[in-house]
This record gives sequence, C-alpha cells and structure tokens, in this order.
Amino acid sequence: MKQAGEQGTLYVISAPSGAGKTSLVGEMLRKDPGLGVSISHTTRPMREGEQDGVNYHFVSRDEFEAMIARGDFLEHADVFGNYYGTSQVWVRETLATGQDVILEIDWQGAEQVRRLIPECVGIFIVPPSAAVLRERLVGRGTDAPEVIERRLAEAAEECRHAVEFDYLVVNDDFDQALGELLSIVRSQRLRMDVQKLRHAQLLAGLAGGL
Amino acid sequence: MKQAGEQGTLYVISAPSGAGKTSLVGEMLRKDPGLGVSISHTTRPMREGEQDGVNYHFVSRDEFEAMIARGDFLEHADVFGNYYGTSQVWVRETLATGQDVILEIDWQGAEQVRRLIPECVGIFIVPPSAAVLRERLVGRGTDAPEVIERRLAEAAEECRHAVEFDYLVVNDDFDQALGELLSIVRSQRLRMDVQKLRHAQLLAGLAGGL
Repeated sequence: MKQAGEQGTLYVISAPSGAGKTSLVGEMLRKDPGLGVSISHTTRPMREGEQDGVNYHFVSRDEFEAMIARGDFLEHADVFGNYYGTSQVWVRETLATGQDVILEIDWQGAEQVRRLIPECVGIFIVPPSAAVLRERLVGRGTDAPEVIERRLAEAAEECRHAVEFDYLVVNDDFDQALGELLSIVRSQRLRMDVQKLRHAQLLAGLAGGL
Repeated sequence: MKQAGEQGTLYVISAPSGAGKTSLVGEMLRKDPGLGVSISHTTRPMREGEQDGVNYHFVSRDEFEAMIARGDFLEHADVFGNYYGTSQVWVRETLATGQDVILEIDWQGAEQVRRLIPECVGIFIVPPSAAVLRERLVGRGTDAPEVIERRLAEAAEECRHAVEFDYLVVNDDFDQALGELLSIVRSQRLRMDVQKLRHAQLLAGLAGGL
C-alpha cells in the first residue's frame, strides 16, 4: 500500500556482458510486482519480432537529438552510431507513484544517472571467475578474433568500475544471486526514511502514548 | 568464507516491550549462523535456571563500576538499581573475526553505541498498532495500575526514538517480519565496502583483462 509522498527507489544495475544480468533482472521483475523496468529510446532500426514501446521506443536521430537538447534523458550513449537513452520524465514520474524502477545500463550510464539522481541504488553483478567470463565471451569461437578481443576488453573495462556501485552480487548460483538481488530491494523498502512516511500514522499513534 | 581484514556488522535492535523483539532475534540467530548475540554483564542477582556466561555475565557492583571506569562498556544502564552493560572488548573482538553481532538494547543504549561505533546498523521493531501493544502490556490486568502505567509510558517513550534507527520492521506477521530482518542482514553483507574485501581477488582478476 503506497502512501502519498512515497517515492520509489531507482536501481541502476550494471555488469559485464556474460554475467547473467538480463536473466536475473527478468526474474526479479517476475518475482517482485513492486519493480518496473525502464524501456529505452533508441535510433537503431527495429528488428523482426520487436515492438515499438515494448522492446524500445524507436525514434529517429533528429527526434533523439532534440530530446538530448531538451535534457529529456537521464543518461544516453552513442553505441557504434546508434543512440540509446533513458527517459528522465518517465523515470521520475514512475518513481513519484511509489513504484521502484530498474535501469539496466553500463557504468557510463550509471555515472550520468548518479549525478542527476544521487539517491539511486547501484548494484554490480559479476560472474564467479574471470575464466568463466572469458569462456562465455569467446563462445564457440565463430566470431572474428577482433570482435572477441573488443568484447573481452569492454567487459574488463566495465569491471574496473564495479567499486563505484553500492552493492556487489556474484552470480555463481543463479537462485542465490536472485535471492540476493531481491533481498537488496526488500531491505531498501525497510529503510527508515521510506518507512516513516509509509507508517507515519502508526508511529505517531505509538509515540503519542498508549 | 571470511577473508583477512573483513569486519562483521554490528546490529542494534530496539523495540518497545511487547513488540516481539526477543522471539524474532532468537529465530534470526537460529536461521543465520553468521549472526551472534552479545551476552550482557549485570549486577542483578542470578535467577533459578540461569547460568553465568549464558544468560548474563553476573558481576558485583564493584566489578561493574570498575569496568565503567575503565571504559569497558559499549553501553550500560542502571535499571531500577541494577546495572546492565555490553562489553566493548567482546563486541570489537567478535566483529574483527568477521562475525556479525546483534545487540538487543533500548534507545538509550543504542545512542551510546552509535557514538562509539557509528557504522552500526540500527533496526527498530514495532507492533502493528498501538491498540495491540496496549493490550499486550496491560496483560490480564493482574498487575498494579501504576506498574501498567509505567510500562505503557516506557513503551511510548521508546517508540518516540524509532526514527533514530536505520530500518523499521513492523511485526504484524511473525514470518514476514523475520524474513524482513534476515533480508536486512543479507543485504548488508552485499554492500560494496564489504564485498570488495571479500572478493578482492575476483575483482582484480576481472578488471585486469580477460
């Protein structure tokens, strides 16, 4: 039950690719109805099976650049010529309803979000070992060596920023990692600054004399 | 698995009497082997069935006052002529082994502990309503009215200090409250400042290049 004035919490979740972040976030959303996920804007072409407003908000480069100019984005990036960004209006409006929001972004996006919403909660997910991650990123070895090298370098670079986050979850066992992520969300909802609004009446009643 | 340099977390748990704190803490200790509880020193006489070093460390007033003078206590109080206190040495040594420690104390003790160990985590437990608490404290009405009145006044005073704690847990459903308490403990162990020591080697390996 959400009370007036109650703010949701913004979770920024980052990880090197291959850490299992997307599967974990998918399960978090299924298990915890108080969590929502932001749908990014992008200028990359829609792929078969994708839907506008479901997978992404698909917009033109002109529209995207106008949004940047208006300061509409909480964070945005140019990834190999395609823009990706998170709508600041949607995130702030959703948090204002008391809903929690997850952003799945990289460390650079996380840095931008932290500047605009310093009270966001950052979670970094890592695989159980460098060897496991390397194996996953190299895959079946069907990709070009320079593609694999770039992937490995990007993953290492991402991991160098782990310490900038508030929590670290090691995804060794999927269910344990999921339980840990859900316990972070659960405990954040028990923080006194959140609870004293949610239970203002109860606290006033208890303190007022019995 | 505890790593060198890893510090346990100190939990200070307070509640008005009748909130179910003692039963909840008992279950926390049973469910989570990483948690220990501090055994207080007291000058009150040992009761039948109690054991020195199990229920309390029973000491004389002279010994207790010498301990106060030496600064041995993290917190202590004089409750109707009997001293109660928490050994600072035991708490600090136990935390240094990486074990988490729970102190079950009142808001005044919590205030003393916060001054000496500011990184402690405070949890306040409340019953679901003032009416429920009143009922529990009045009991069968066999106590003298002035005893009941004092009990009610003390509980209300305790609740006025709830907002000084980091987390608030409402004990409406026992299992839910227990789950919430355990999720606070679990999430604290995932904090980056703790995890970056525990997983220093993993993080260095991941960031060093794959």
